[in-house]
Amino acid sequence: MSITKQTIELFYDVVSPYSWIAFEELCRYRTKWNIDLKLRPFFLGGIMQSSGNKPPASVPAKGDYMVHDISRLRRFYHIPVNFPANVAEVLFVKGSLAAQRFLTAVQITKPELVEPLSRELWMRIWSRDEDIASLDSLRQAGRKIGLLEPEIDGLIDQSKGDSVKNRLKQVTQEALDAGAFGAPTIIVHDLDNTKNLVFGSDRMLIIAMLLGEQYVGPLTELAPSKL
Amino acid sequence: MSITKQTIELFYDVVSPYSWIAFEELCRYRTKWNIDLKLRPFFLGGIMQSSGNKPPASVPAKGDYMVHDISRLRRFYHIPVNFPANVAEVLFVKGSLAAQRFLTAVQITKPELVEPLSRELWMRIWSRDEDIASLDSLRQAGRKIGLLEPEIDGLIDQSKGDSVKNRLKQVTQEALDAGAFGAPTIIVHDLDNTKNLVFGSDRMLIIAMLLGEQYVGPLTELAPSKL
Repeated sequence: MSITKQTIELFYDVVSPYSWIAFEELCRYRTKWNIDLKLRPFFLGGIMQSSGNKPPASVPAKGDYMVHDISRLRRFYHIPVNFPANVAEVLFVKGSLAAQRFLTAVQITKPELVEPLSRELWMRIWSRDEDIASLDSLRQAGRKIGLLEPEIDGLIDQSKGDSVKNRLKQVTQEALDAGAFGAPTIIVHDLDNTKNLVFGSDRMLIIAMLLGEQYVGPLTELAPSKL
Repeated sequence: MSITKQTIELFYDVVSPYSWIAFEELCRYRTKWNIDLKLRPFFLGGIMQSSGNKPPASVPAKGDYMVHDISRLRRFYHIPVNFPANVAEVLFVKGSLAAQRFLTAVQITKPELVEPLSRELWMRIWSRDEDIASLDSLRQAGRKIGLLEPEIDGLIDQSKGDSVKNRLKQVTQEALDAGAFGAPTIIVHDLDNTKNLVFGSDRMLIIAMLLGEQYVGPLTELAPSKL
């Protein structure tokens, strides 16, 4: 283990359940690996459009498979993922633009709250089947992580402004420039200081190899109690 | 560990490098897990066409990513995967129909040779950049695994006949009926005798969970010496 922490950048969108899994895995492994985890909310809609990629469920058999796959990953990682009742509406009509802008505002103003807010937004959309598209929903999420009403007002205002919109576009473009075509996209800065693009929640063994660290399982004992 | 072996069916096509990785992983884990591994060569072209799925490289950024991903998996698993120089021609023009039919003939007539023949075909297409489309190439692969000329003649003849063609179609249809949309497709018969469809070479931790077994790493010490 080197003295300098190695950086892992996690590009994610709360619309993506596999991003949630990668997020919890990497948050847990901060306690085992000598890593500096940088949370980088981006806009998955922009990634899919620019890369020409299609959501998995655009192939019907893949959509059916995802339900089983996610349910097994839930059991393996102890992450309470549930499919929303109307998954097409939640993912493709309502989407995550307002949520990712709100997260971006929080990252600029209160970066220490990006982790709990991301988790709470995933709990809403991907566990309790609650809305994340309306401003009222975002306010509820903000309250849940302990923000005060005036702070929430400020962050909501900020999230509608150009600096947040531009920041979210920049982060999304940075991921595209690095080769992203979906979420989660992980950039592992390895021992040789090379940036390694890794896609998906299922490459923890490979990330461990790149870091020269050991993978020791899903660390379910570190699942936050609120999960 | 139960006394009865649990069955794992591996549906694969030698055109798919991720299938090779799953194949070697599962062949190695036969020595650790109480499993009966059933090798089930199918035709990936038929799976893609019927499911409406597209090859990963149809999204350019995904194609670029695969090169890096495969190179890291090669290092992790000690499987000597190399991209063919002209990957589009090898995968989409030449394809694997003749090879999968030859494998099917071998499975009917000399089932114990399906494993070494599959490995040799992968070595040809996905390691040494050699052809697997011509009958002469299939003959060379047959010789390499110790088949005699008259045996090869018989298997080549057999591979052109209706019983082999129909058998390959049947296996492909069986995978489609189980929900397949790509390769490798793995069916894990778990402790409750439920059939679990698993996609990809990156679900060994989940397969271990379904079997009630332990995953203990890539078992690189079991890499065949010829690799």
